[in-house]
Amino acid sequence: MKKIVVFGEVLLRLSPPDYTRFGQATAFNIYYAGAEYNTAISLALLGLPVSFVTRLPDNDLSIAAVQQLKRYGVEGNNICYGGKRLGTYYLEQGAVMRGSKVIYDREHSSIAEIEPGLLDWKNILKDAGWFHCTGITPAVSQAAADETLTAVKMASELGLTVSIDLNYRSKLWQYGKHPKEVMPEIMKYCNVVLGDMNTVKTYFEIESAEQDKKDSYKDCMQQLKKMFPNLQHIIFSFRDTHSVTNNSIGAFNLNSDKLIESTVFNMQGMVDRLGGGDALMVGIIYGLNKFKDNPQKSIDFAVAAAALKSSIPGDTNFVTEDEILSLMQGNTSGKINR
Amino acid sequence: MKKIVVFGEVLLRLSPPDYTRFGQATAFNIYYAGAEYNTAISLALLGLPVSFVTRLPDNDLSIAAVQQLKRYGVEGNNICYGGKRLGTYYLEQGAVMRGSKVIYDREHSSIAEIEPGLLDWKNILKDAGWFHCTGITPAVSQAAADETLTAVKMASELGLTVSIDLNYRSKLWQYGKHPKEVMPEIMKYCNVVLGDMNTVKTYFEIESAEQDKKDSYKDCMQQLKKMFPNLQHIIFSFRDTHSVTNNSIGAFNLNSDKLIESTVFNMQGMVDRLGGGDALMVGIIYGLNKFKDNPQKSIDFAVAAAALKSSIPGDTNFVTEDEILSLMQGNTSGKINR
Amino acid sequence: MKKIVVFGEVLLRLSPPDYTRFGQATAFNIYYAGAEYNTAISLALLGLPVSFVTRLPDNDLSIAAVQQLKRYGVEGNNICYGGKRLGTYYLEQGAVMRGSKVIYDREHSSIAEIEPGLLDWKNILKDAGWFHCTGITPAVSQAAADETLTAVKMASELGLTVSIDLNYRSKLWQYGKHPKEVMPEIMKYCNVVLGDMNTVKTYFEIESAEQDKKDSYKDCMQQLKKMFPNLQHIIFSFRDTHSVTNNSIGAFNLNSDKLIESTVFNMQGMVDRLGGGDALMVGIIYGLNKFKDNPQKSIDFAVAAAALKSSIPGDTNFVTEDEILSLMQGNTSGKINR
Amino acid sequence: MKKIVVFGEVLLRLSPPDYTRFGQATAFNIYYAGAEYNTAISLALLGLPVSFVTRLPDNDLSIAAVQQLKRYGVEGNNICYGGKRLGTYYLEQGAVMRGSKVIYDREHSSIAEIEPGLLDWKNILKDAGWFHCTGITPAVSQAAADETLTAVKMASELGLTVSIDLNYRSKLWQYGKHPKEVMPEIMKYCNVVLGDMNTVKTYFEIESAEQDKKDSYKDCMQQLKKMFPNLQHIIFSFRDTHSVTNNSIGAFNLNSDKLIESTVFNMQGMVDRLGGGDALMVGIIYGLNKFKDNPQKSIDFAVAAAALKSSIPGDTNFVTEDEILSLMQGNTSGKINR
Amino acid sequence: MKKIVVFGEVLLRLSPPDYTRFGQATAFNIYYAGAEYNTAISLALLGLPVSFVTRLPDNDLSIAAVQQLKRYGVEGNNICYGGKRLGTYYLEQGAVMRGSKVIYDREHSSIAEIEPGLLDWKNILKDAGWFHCTGITPAVSQAAADETLTAVKMASELGLTVSIDLNYRSKLWQYGKHPKEVMPEIMKYCNVVLGDMNTVKTYFEIESAEQDKKDSYKDCMQQLKKMFPNLQHIIFSFRDTHSVTNNSIGAFNLNSDKLIESTVFNMQGMVDRLGGGDALMVGIIYGLNKFKDNPQKSIDFAVAAAALKSSIPGDTNFVTEDEILSLMQGNTSGKINR
Amino acid sequence: MKKIVVFGEVLLRLSPPDYTRFGQATAFNIYYAGAEYNTAISLALLGLPVSFVTRLPDNDLSIAAVQQLKRYGVEGNNICYGGKRLGTYYLEQGAVMRGSKVIYDREHSSIAEIEPGLLDWKNILKDAGWFHCTGITPAVSQAAADETLTAVKMASELGLTVSIDLNYRSKLWQYGKHPKEVMPEIMKYCNVVLGDMNTVKTYFEIESAEQDKKDSYKDCMQQLKKMFPNLQHIIFSFRDTHSVTNNSIGAFNLNSDKLIESTVFNMQGMVDRLGGGDALMVGIIYGLNKFKDNPQKSIDFAVAAAALKSSIPGDTNFVTEDEILSLMQGNTSGKINR
Repeated sequence: MKKIVVFGEVLLRLSPPDYTRFGQATAFNIYYAGAEYNTAISLALLGLPVSFVTRLPDNDLSIAAVQQLKRYGVEGNNICYGGKRLGTYYLEQGAVMRGSKVIYDREHSSIAEIEPGLLDWKNILKDAGWFHCTGITPAVSQAAADETLTAVKMASELGLTVSIDLNYRSKLWQYGKHPKEVMPEIMKYCNVVLGDMNTVKTYFEIESAEQDKKDSYKDCMQQLKKMFPNLQHIIFSFRDTHSVTNNSIGAFNLNSDKLIESTVFNMQGMVDRLGGGDALMVGIIYGLNKFKDNPQKSIDFAVAAAALKSSIPGDTNFVTEDEILSLMQGNTSGKINR
Repeated sequence: MKKIVVFGEVLLRLSPPDYTRFGQATAFNIYYAGAEYNTAISLALLGLPVSFVTRLPDNDLSIAAVQQLKRYGVEGNNICYGGKRLGTYYLEQGAVMRGSKVIYDREHSSIAEIEPGLLDWKNILKDAGWFHCTGITPAVSQAAADETLTAVKMASELGLTVSIDLNYRSKLWQYGKHPKEVMPEIMKYCNVVLGDMNTVKTYFEIESAEQDKKDSYKDCMQQLKKMFPNLQHIIFSFRDTHSVTNNSIGAFNLNSDKLIESTVFNMQGMVDRLGGGDALMVGIIYGLNKFKDNPQKSIDFAVAAAALKSSIPGDTNFVTEDEILSLMQGNTSGKINR
Repeated sequence: MKKIVVFGEVLLRLSPPDYTRFGQATAFNIYYAGAEYNTAISLALLGLPVSFVTRLPDNDLSIAAVQQLKRYGVEGNNICYGGKRLGTYYLEQGAVMRGSKVIYDREHSSIAEIEPGLLDWKNILKDAGWFHCTGITPAVSQAAADETLTAVKMASELGLTVSIDLNYRSKLWQYGKHPKEVMPEIMKYCNVVLGDMNTVKTYFEIESAEQDKKDSYKDCMQQLKKMFPNLQHIIFSFRDTHSVTNNSIGAFNLNSDKLIESTVFNMQGMVDRLGGGDALMVGIIYGLNKFKDNPQKSIDFAVAAAALKSSIPGDTNFVTEDEILSLMQGNTSGKINR
Repeated sequence: MKKIVVFGEVLLRLSPPDYTRFGQATAFNIYYAGAEYNTAISLALLGLPVSFVTRLPDNDLSIAAVQQLKRYGVEGNNICYGGKRLGTYYLEQGAVMRGSKVIYDREHSSIAEIEPGLLDWKNILKDAGWFHCTGITPAVSQAAADETLTAVKMASELGLTVSIDLNYRSKLWQYGKHPKEVMPEIMKYCNVVLGDMNTVKTYFEIESAEQDKKDSYKDCMQQLKKMFPNLQHIIFSFRDTHSVTNNSIGAFNLNSDKLIESTVFNMQGMVDRLGGGDALMVGIIYGLNKFKDNPQKSIDFAVAAAALKSSIPGDTNFVTEDEILSLMQGNTSGKINR
Repeated sequence: MKKIVVFGEVLLRLSPPDYTRFGQATAFNIYYAGAEYNTAISLALLGLPVSFVTRLPDNDLSIAAVQQLKRYGVEGNNICYGGKRLGTYYLEQGAVMRGSKVIYDREHSSIAEIEPGLLDWKNILKDAGWFHCTGITPAVSQAAADETLTAVKMASELGLTVSIDLNYRSKLWQYGKHPKEVMPEIMKYCNVVLGDMNTVKTYFEIESAEQDKKDSYKDCMQQLKKMFPNLQHIIFSFRDTHSVTNNSIGAFNLNSDKLIESTVFNMQGMVDRLGGGDALMVGIIYGLNKFKDNPQKSIDFAVAAAALKSSIPGDTNFVTEDEILSLMQGNTSGKINR
Repeated sequence: MKKIVVFGEVLLRLSPPDYTRFGQATAFNIYYAGAEYNTAISLALLGLPVSFVTRLPDNDLSIAAVQQLKRYGVEGNNICYGGKRLGTYYLEQGAVMRGSKVIYDREHSSIAEIEPGLLDWKNILKDAGWFHCTGITPAVSQAAADETLTAVKMASELGLTVSIDLNYRSKLWQYGKHPKEVMPEIMKYCNVVLGDMNTVKTYFEIESAEQDKKDSYKDCMQQLKKMFPNLQHIIFSFRDTHSVTNNSIGAFNLNSDKLIESTVFNMQGMVDRLGGGDALMVGIIYGLNKFKDNPQKSIDFAVAAAALKSSIPGDTNFVTEDEILSLMQGNTSGKINR
């Protein structure tokens, strides 16, 4: 299989332990994260060849982040070093009815201040078969949005499959542009998209008047397909948040004009809410490559992967194909094999 | 707004971490606590001017406890130093069907051995508008009961609103008096009371023959009002313990002769059971000052504050007004804002 | 009461903390464990006289394991030292829908390589009234199976009550024998057995065609009794795994020809799944000695003990008789006594 | 060998970790301690039969403390339960030039409020050959001083060897007596004493005008012998504190009229300063029993034990005879045997 | 005494624990720090009235930092909120011969992007008697340098004593200016300066050809005085780094034309190297206010304070006047008072 | 540069934290280790191309160990999976005068039970320029010794430089052979050797009658050269253990017939004693490749690398070339660059 190139930002996540609030904490747990970073590692853990592309400052935190990529088998030879800082975010984990809280400190990161030409996309993509990015990178800065556009254009030109996780982050988009002004142009070059109802409304003003849940999903997904004819696979996920640590997750896959609905998994006693969407995206890419003729299995695999993620501390989904398949086969109760 | 004077004991709480039992623990987590101490800090976090009054031994643990008061904006200029020890309690946290376990080690604390005149109440209360105490301090020792009575009398005489959280603790009351002999006299001077069915039976022999829950609450609350005519606001809380880490909390407010019932919040996956009542008391005081014309909002605010407390390690409710209001508006699922 | 001799393996359990996966862990929590070891300690905590018999290597880990036995009152004078290593297992705790994972590293342990004559059973058992073993020891090696047989024979000959927890572990039995070839011979000498449907099928090819749950249990238990006429007490437990941290546990007791069913306890928010069966076995031995005339109380006591175990980190059930009785009386909600 | 009865107080020691100050700590490390408790455990670890006698409150902390005794082989059958609390002390560990800091919270402990007759000394001591106590217990309260006197009298009457570690604690002796009024009477019944220059001056007004260190030690030790003719063995220790974590330790033994000087051990990078004296006392008792004909070996063994203690967190000296002997043979550099 | 206004940056310090390297760490210890922040807290702990002025982003980390100021008694009413981020630095602690390593991530902090007029200095300084700043703030950005100049000018105009800790940080000064272009103008308004030989060479091109250490210090200090006639007190510190955890610290005070040399303290087994200079600065300010007639005591007090700092984790010197005085009186060995 | 193939065992090291003894520990810190594993990672960190060859069981611990190799850039494609267990050792760290203690649990590891042919050495070594092994692998089992011999023979035949770290471990060699019977045959094929006086005596019965240290080293090194004519580079290291945490380290290099002596580094306050020799071996391999014409620089580089190791928790030397060079240039005091 040809390699998958993933482009995006590496984030340092710092979290107070044991449900303490920011003001109570005397230490932060460290996780290297970022939607695309999580995706790259998880794809590699499933055995796919992955190359991660980003820009990082030249310091020991970046080195640790890249070593973690290498640890899980992600190639990082095209990472470009320079700029001032590693994007950082602080996550206070919620409990009971207190929601999690995020403090972003990612402005002026090396990738936010990337300059055209630092990444030689033609060369980077030359042996690849797939390119993946998200809606987060274009939200960080004009430079990052421009770079994303450059990348998807080149990927498309070179005949790669281009996937995108739309991933709307309302706290970003601080550089003077509304997503409507940016995302449609990038979407033109995409073939696979993971989205949700709220995001397509924000990015593309797509909504549906249908009352029925499935009908309204189908309607929006079809509108999206009409708007961006290059799209071959459209997946919309949904998450029902019964409580802070009890969510359900599921997805729809628009397969030609048929709407395929995934198994919905209920996640009680969630250990870490973050990274579920990234895990789902990984499952989609994996499924489209491995279970081509079985769209139901593909979407179920993606959602099962996302469900497993909720059991793992940090943002990244450290699971194997076997574990995901086992969950899909109904092993949801965790009997110990001993 | 005039300042609120809170009187009571500071406790050092020591807890084995991670659901270990006392015999398994090799370290204790440290929390400075005490019903009135928690109340004072939480009131200050909501922006109210608060002064905390107690007696503490002159050592580094007391200094740490007082520094924590100052940290959150509570003034401690009238704390009196002397005596031998800081009241201490050991809390082993329960799980599944194993209940939490408390070892009290608070006899002979500085406040239990307070002497008349050490606290100059006339001076302490002179610029205050509100005085708050609980039924725990009179349970500690004759001296502490006497001091509480002295304080409420003076507060009443100076025209302050006097509030009390009845807070029955069966393991205290070891100094030879039954609460019946002590609490009625203190109650005479109180204007706002937080109680519950079990406590008013123990303290005042009030019970109801009504079958219906609301009717019996109303009956008892009305009896209490009749017994203590100075009472202007009577709130009774209730807690349904479905399991060790799954409780529901609610309250009734007797407003003139109308019984107002709060929203009932279900708290799944509770992180720390302690301090819920103190948080509720804070909400009552806040509501009576801030939402005077809206008793429903007042009582809902109080219960929402208590519900949030269950998500925070330790005894004290480190939350903001915004967080409580957000929960009241139905944001119970903890969607992350990012 | 005469002493209970428990024979089996001591295991060192190493577990990543806080739901981290093996690859994420930088430290392992240490628990000294083993089904029989857990049973011995828990019996001693209930006040029964217990002696533990095993073979251990002569190193500081063994010393720590034996000191823990002594700590809880288990006598270890007949432990025999020699051999190369302490059996070890690594347990990664599951969460949400991710199951727990066990890596066994117990081959070549001192007890697996025991030699005939190292343990002088006649002498060891001479003042005892009860002998307990499990189906795990015979699964470890031919030598351990032989030693178990030697022990039950001698115990039977000396007139002790012999109990066994069948405890099937599919990952063991690596030494060339199927349990069918080993367990029936041992069972001949047993008077009390704790089993379950899956295990009796594997060991003794016992199954039932009955549709109704109770009927099928009764059927299998009666077949077992017929097969092994020395059996006086047959208890079968069952565990329903609703999710990784939410199980229910219950048991049946075949009393003469009447099937007694225990209270079923639902364990939400389980802290540690391991050791539940061992705790149940302890309750059976205790009940048969203390509540002889009350088989319902006996079986309820056993299941309540098992339910409490799920709230305690590690494999061993550190609870008192009072705590078990309190749970049996319906105190499942963990109100704090303070 | 006949058993050694050790009498004294169990203390709960709580210490901030990693050189944090009291005000910085969010957890306390837990150590069960007390001079006599440490001594009892360490004697048992050396293989001597030891019984520990004290009075403890009936709670889970006491149970943990007694379980630790049992863990290391100390018999606790004569511990008497009752009273209100476990003596507690808080230790902030010093570093560089900042000294360690102690907060005592041991008033009103169960042993401080012991009553005559609770301990049946005649029975307790009936099979014993040795009785050990310290100058700390008489410093705690009049009742504890009285009990100590009762015990040494009975021990003496029954012909036991009585040893005492003089152990002056200036922060104790708060009950209205000066040690001069108490200790001489107790000393009358003692046969073995561990003291130091400062303590004998405080307790017995013994000092020397000699200039030379050895001469002045000999002088004081001889005065002590003259004052208490029952004394058979007099050992004085000294500690030179070069810095907070760099001390030297040594001792003198007055053997008939010859002064034997121990090897002096320099302890660089001390991990925990506490318990050195207790470890030394253990060495003396051990030496007098095991190396009777070799007073030099005895005193060197005692000092080596004390030196090893400084490497171990907590108050208790968890070392074996082999480890002490190895250090005496000059193995001070810690080459790893692998 | 009139209040001291301290102006500067709050930093979040994040450090791997237990001498791990950046790449090994899974958690960072959290310390709120910054030279001026440390100084403010430590002055308040010594009992002086202190107000801290800075600019902070409006988030929970800032709130925690300000709460810590309040905890120790520093008033923060003139802190201005706005801007994007809290300055951060990562500190990997060295050991043996491996030096500590700093990663600065403080660009674009709220104070670096301060704008003229946000701080109303006339009002801020109106009741103050002393103003303190350092050479770090002007090194951060042009805006911060300008604000510092504005502040010292106004302080000088209003007749306050102005002190500065020159504090050269070579990794800062990235905004296009050399310190020579900035610091002399600020120094014109200063009355008290803490410097060192390397810094005055960098800032003011002051060096000495004297061979003797004391002569060369005196020479440089006199040159500095000549250059800035407003200077009344000139203190130069020096630190000899024998090894990573073994430094010596001392200082010279130019008193009129007499050079006063402090006691030199050797700090073995340093726990945390950071904040020593800030602690020394605190001692100088304290000494000039409290020991006016005793310059030797003043400078010794300052150096003793700095020496104690090395024993405390974090950047801030949590010590009392008593502890500093005790060290000055030669109590360097940490005998425990118990 | 052609790749370096390193062959040996991966060990799981488990260590009680904070100087606790085995019996006190409730958790073990986890380090993946092994002399050859440490060497491989450290070589890769210095930028050399490294391939690690071993046999590992197929479980999650092995996966974590291999992921760590990949993290630091070591290629592991020729690792062979099979067998039963990962070699394990338990290390209790010493302090003051208490030495560190090792419990080996490495029998029956996958590599100890390797079988001929599992590793296809011809293929493994085909693109390599260097082969490295140690005297530990042949000490583990006959199979491992045989495999080592097979490997060095093939490496020699293919013209690779073969290096060996003699590394005598007295607790190994349990399989019935004395090192004298095994090591000489392997040595025949080696070109570079790291040894020490004690090891060459044990392995080859080489000793010297010379009194002078340098003379006796030279004598032994020359004897070794005579005995094994293929040796081109002979380095002997020495370690002086002043105390458990204060060692000095140095080495001699026999260059033709000239003895070159390294700088001797004194390591005060050592954080972790393990892995120093492995770090030194890395320096030798690096120096022979990078500083060919400068044997003094080579040997100093090696010793400086070893000295730095003592500051890092775990067995592996996580340092860069810059850090080693900086130490060689005399930067031993750890001034912070900030």
